[in-house]
Amino acid sequence: MKEIKVGLLGFGTIGTGVVKLLQNNGELLAERLGCRLRLVRIADLDISSDRGVRVDAGILTSDAMSILDDPEIDVVIELIGGYEPARTFVLRAIENGKQVVTANKALLALHGREIFSAAAEKGVEVLFEAAVGGGIPIITSLKENLCGNRFRSVFGILNGTCNYILSRMTHEGEEFATVLAEAQQAGYAEADPTFDIEGVDTAHKLALLVGLCFGTNIDFAAIHSEGISSLTSQDIRFADQFGYRIKLLAIGKRHDDGTIEARVHPTMIPKHYPLADVDGAYNAVRVVGDFVGPVMQYGLGAGMDATASAVVGDLMALARNLVRGQGARTHGLGCHPGQLRELQVRPMADVVTQYYLRFTTVDRPGVLAAISGILGQHQISIASMVQPERHEAEAVPIVIMTHEARERDVQAALQQIDQLDIVREKSHLIRIENQL
Amino acid sequence: MKEIKVGLLGFGTIGTGVVKLLQNNGELLAERLGCRLRLVRIADLDISSDRGVRVDAGILTSDAMSILDDPEIDVVIELIGGYEPARTFVLRAIENGKQVVTANKALLALHGREIFSAAAEKGVEVLFEAAVGGGIPIITSLKENLCGNRFRSVFGILNGTCNYILSRMTHEGEEFATVLAEAQQAGYAEADPTFDIEGVDTAHKLALLVGLCFGTNIDFAAIHSEGISSLTSQDIRFADQFGYRIKLLAIGKRHDDGTIEARVHPTMIPKHYPLADVDGAYNAVRVVGDFVGPVMQYGLGAGMDATASAVVGDLMALARNLVRGQGARTHGLGCHPGQLRELQVRPMADVVTQYYLRFTTVDRPGVLAAISGILGQHQISIASMVQPERHEAEAVPIVIMTHEARERDVQAALQQIDQLDIVREKSHLIRIENQL
Repeated sequence: MKEIKVGLLGFGTIGTGVVKLLQNNGELLAERLGCRLRLVRIADLDISSDRGVRVDAGILTSDAMSILDDPEIDVVIELIGGYEPARTFVLRAIENGKQVVTANKALLALHGREIFSAAAEKGVEVLFEAAVGGGIPIITSLKENLCGNRFRSVFGILNGTCNYILSRMTHEGEEFATVLAEAQQAGYAEADPTFDIEGVDTAHKLALLVGLCFGTNIDFAAIHSEGISSLTSQDIRFADQFGYRIKLLAIGKRHDDGTIEARVHPTMIPKHYPLADVDGAYNAVRVVGDFVGPVMQYGLGAGMDATASAVVGDLMALARNLVRGQGARTHGLGCHPGQLRELQVRPMADVVTQYYLRFTTVDRPGVLAAISGILGQHQISIASMVQPERHEAEAVPIVIMTHEARERDVQAALQQIDQLDIVREKSHLIRIENQL
Repeated sequence: MKEIKVGLLGFGTIGTGVVKLLQNNGELLAERLGCRLRLVRIADLDISSDRGVRVDAGILTSDAMSILDDPEIDVVIELIGGYEPARTFVLRAIENGKQVVTANKALLALHGREIFSAAAEKGVEVLFEAAVGGGIPIITSLKENLCGNRFRSVFGILNGTCNYILSRMTHEGEEFATVLAEAQQAGYAEADPTFDIEGVDTAHKLALLVGLCFGTNIDFAAIHSEGISSLTSQDIRFADQFGYRIKLLAIGKRHDDGTIEARVHPTMIPKHYPLADVDGAYNAVRVVGDFVGPVMQYGLGAGMDATASAVVGDLMALARNLVRGQGARTHGLGCHPGQLRELQVRPMADVVTQYYLRFTTVDRPGVLAAISGILGQHQISIASMVQPERHEAEAVPIVIMTHEARERDVQAALQQIDQLDIVREKSHLIRIENQL
């Protein structure tokens, strides 16, 4: 039986999962594949810690180059994460004619153009199913099965940490800071959770989904991204009253004029939508194609085992080609990098959507007239209003749901409203998606 | 730009969708693929009706052999459906070295072994993404991305007609016969709906899912299959009271002893499960793998456009290989037919699950004691009981939810209970799945 030789860069959580999967299911993989996958070397700076899986000490090395430059190795799996040295290593692997599997969304979101072009030139493949949605096979589905479609939109719940925090805020009424602290203690959130809770990780993943759906090399800096740290349980309760859940949503849309939207922010979605029920550590992606209509995929978005499943799926795909003496079969974003379009991303100020607005004001007649007057001046019309809690305290909340309005107008109106002396706190907005 | 030449067998609804997709999105497909797909001939017995798409009359033929035996044609798409002449045509295409795309679940469920073996011998591929779940890419996901996993279970809502009928019975309280008649008038159900409503179509699809998940050539006759025609709105209401929805569910499980379950029947699933919300024309599949955990996919299960999306996805996959001068890349059920196992399907009598039992009895003291006594004699213990409606009429319903019990025992108990003179109607059972 033929053998495919694999080198692994990065022996952290996911790397350990990959080793475990190859060990536990090795016979099954060989049967399905008609060849054997042999992990010949693992590089990590730490080659002494016990990861709970048995590996022959002889295959561990702290020298990544000994993998990248080994002519025997067919496939390199990059699980180091971050920009450098991952970028240098991946480019070196490509230069040496190796097939590459990576789970590194940050790297591909920022350096995808360089990496995919290098791979196309060299005739090798860079697969990255594990970079988006953990075990959910959305990347391959977009690249292969659904590739007959012109995509209209893609929506994703893509960060497990945020979704866990929002789920607990929703179902237990707790505040953000409390849940985050507990999640950090339990190991569900990083010690420095900035990338997760501020939406950066989700934006990295959206960059890849938008690239695949719309055939474009998106400039990562053009993605508007906001996190969940300023959400309050009060907003979640109001959302519930109006029939919505709040999710950190990655949103990609393509308009008929050829511009696209690419944005990440807390979003209110109707409770009865399937995405609204995606809770805890689960991720989900929903795409709408012109022929297939809506397709949703749902699964564990992170974790050692689910991510290892995606990495090994990619490894098997590459091995399937190699065992038949065949080289690259697909390109990074689904077509040759030369075919990718430069599509203009709509500036956030030009986005049109519905809004939830929460004002904190003194409890006095005329307040609503003042606020609605300013909204009206900015072409923002009100769909519904609620002022549910009448406290003894001086400050009371007023919540307004708008019809469709332009972000620029909403921001200008809020700025003006926040200068009124009846307003006690900076006003909050949450964008609404009623048409997923 | 290189061209891949395609022949289409069957110019019905899905065939028309495929022609429309190739026309509307042809440029996009060529960009993504780096080659052109050219539909060179369409065979159908009816070559004169207007399908609403423009095709050059010169490519229409009533002679399928002129496609199958044309050495110029690279890929044959079979959309005739049914066993013959589809089987003969597909085998002929394989014999002539053509790649094949088919949406024909009936054919593959019964003759898959013969067809996939012939393809393996000839070194061509037979892809069938459109055969299960319409636009949902579950076949490829199982064969490729998730193939690192040992699968434990697969559950599917796979028949749009049944799901539409059950959704209307659930949400509008209507009876089966009424909804079916309306669905037939509206064109959502066939004039002869037997294959759909009696679960045969779902069982065909389950045979393919079980084959892929567990690496086996399942004997179609071993799949226990029941339809939805005996369900009443009363059962749906009782299910709702207990926190359940009723779906026609395809169930595949693998046990540690190497036996599998493969069964199709109306099934009560907890309302809060994602599958419970899959309504109307939507299909969904949920698989659980040892590494990936649960993955669910959801989309339109049928219809011209969604199914065409799946057919063209397969066509693109084959073209991707052909354009690189490469032959077959995968085998029908995910591994070489010689590697498939013969796994024993548990007889229905040996299946263990929970049950909903509905008895119709006279309204008289001692009735429950008689029924529960017989259940107890058959090792069936009661989890809860309800006797909610007290009519003036002589016959009243008694509903019992059981703990786990063996089908054989339940059938024996019901047979005995139905002979009691206090029982007024044949008793009903619905199986429950609490652990998807």
